[in-house]
Amino acid sequence: MRLLLISNSTNPGEPYLDYPKKKIGEFLGDNPVKALFLPYAAVTFSYDAYEKKVSERFQETGHNVVSVHHYDDPVKAVSEASAIVVGGGNTWKLIKNIQDKGLIDIVRQKVLGGTPYIGWSAGSNVACPTIKTTNDMPVMEPRSFNSFNLIPFQINPHYLDANPAGHAGETREQRIEEFIEANPDVYVAGLREGTMLLIENEEINLFGPRKARIFRKGKPPIEVGPDDDLTFLLERES
Amino acid sequence: MRLLLISNSTNPGEPYLDYPKKKIGEFLGDNPVKALFLPYAAVTFSYDAYEKKVSERFQETGHNVVSVHHYDDPVKAVSEASAIVVGGGNTWKLIKNIQDKGLIDIVRQKVLGGTPYIGWSAGSNVACPTIKTTNDMPVMEPRSFNSFNLIPFQINPHYLDANPAGHAGETREQRIEEFIEANPDVYVAGLREGTMLLIENEEINLFGPRKARIFRKGKPPIEVGPDDDLTFLLERES
Repeated sequence: MRLLLISNSTNPGEPYLDYPKKKIGEFLGDNPVKALFLPYAAVTFSYDAYEKKVSERFQETGHNVVSVHHYDDPVKAVSEASAIVVGGGNTWKLIKNIQDKGLIDIVRQKVLGGTPYIGWSAGSNVACPTIKTTNDMPVMEPRSFNSFNLIPFQINPHYLDANPAGHAGETREQRIEEFIEANPDVYVAGLREGTMLLIENEEINLFGPRKARIFRKGKPPIEVGPDDDLTFLLERES
Repeated sequence: MRLLLISNSTNPGEPYLDYPKKKIGEFLGDNPVKALFLPYAAVTFSYDAYEKKVSERFQETGHNVVSVHHYDDPVKAVSEASAIVVGGGNTWKLIKNIQDKGLIDIVRQKVLGGTPYIGWSAGSNVACPTIKTTNDMPVMEPRSFNSFNLIPFQINPHYLDANPAGHAGETREQRIEEFIEANPDVYVAGLREGTMLLIENEEINLFGPRKARIFRKGKPPIEVGPDDDLTFLLERES
């Protein structure tokens, strides 16, 4: 199994998908790959516009994407994909469309069978067992909260330490503490902006300029960096 | 119908429920009211602790609360309540417990029949048709996104203009734009910290030091203050 799970598409002040571009290119390898792109997280812009934006950046890596919305049969398109790329936007829209089009099982089957998967933001969220650690507003109701379940832990993308000035609600850490209270057997990895997890079979490594923050019920949160052993995150409870 | 829908419990640096205390006292009137408190939004603290915190503040207003968790039959407790108070915390936990205990219909029936309703944060969210404008992390899965539907519009509590420093995800305004794209027939009122809506039958008024921001598909967002006519928010589409 090969996954590149990215916190956010874009760092402030940088072009779209610029910072993870190099890693995306390496991940897909030396031979040009035309990956299947799932644009369903888009709500306020078109799939065509989204595909164009992503395609431009992927071409700079020597690869390319084609969006699944061009295919009459999305299940068949996934089954024939050489790589699967899932972009960010709104996680609820994304998971609803994935479920409605019947793509959960086929994506899981393909990725477990070795097809590379790249996700960022909402696209990293849906690689998890459920979407219960999304930050997004639930603007539409999916069939369930279950997702691709490619990894046994949850990612919180865009993990933030601070609240905005004047915000009197819960911090992100408090929200994740609610998650582990309600879901005591699941690890959560808070992925800060500009960071990503690379998972290749039994190996998992963090890349980027910031540490990740790991949460689990009954344990104090820990900070982990690129040199730390993260394989405990991949252990599935029996 | 009488509703007091408050954005947030606590302003930064102030004691819990301090700023809305005076308005809560006026809303409940001169005769002492022992309101029924729904503490279900609590995830990481006990219902007893939550009740105590709220009760202390309500006593300063000449009123009091008793939490529904002390009753064997929550539906009966609601049906006999002289006022209903719904506290903040996690909206998903709150709505799941409300649905699981079968309280949607009885709360709606009571409030439409004149029983005063006070909510803050998650407690204001559940007064809306759905919980689709919550900011909270979906740490558990409810039966549906449908809520008390006491008002025909959606509230986004803790409405914020700014993103935290370094955050590279969508702004709150962008998230609400996604909501109105997906739900074009519904108004959203972004309630900034320290503000509240008082609804008495056909009248609706904003209180507090900040304006509210109103969103609707196809219209530019508008800023409204305490002197503006907000009755358009209460019109149900036929």
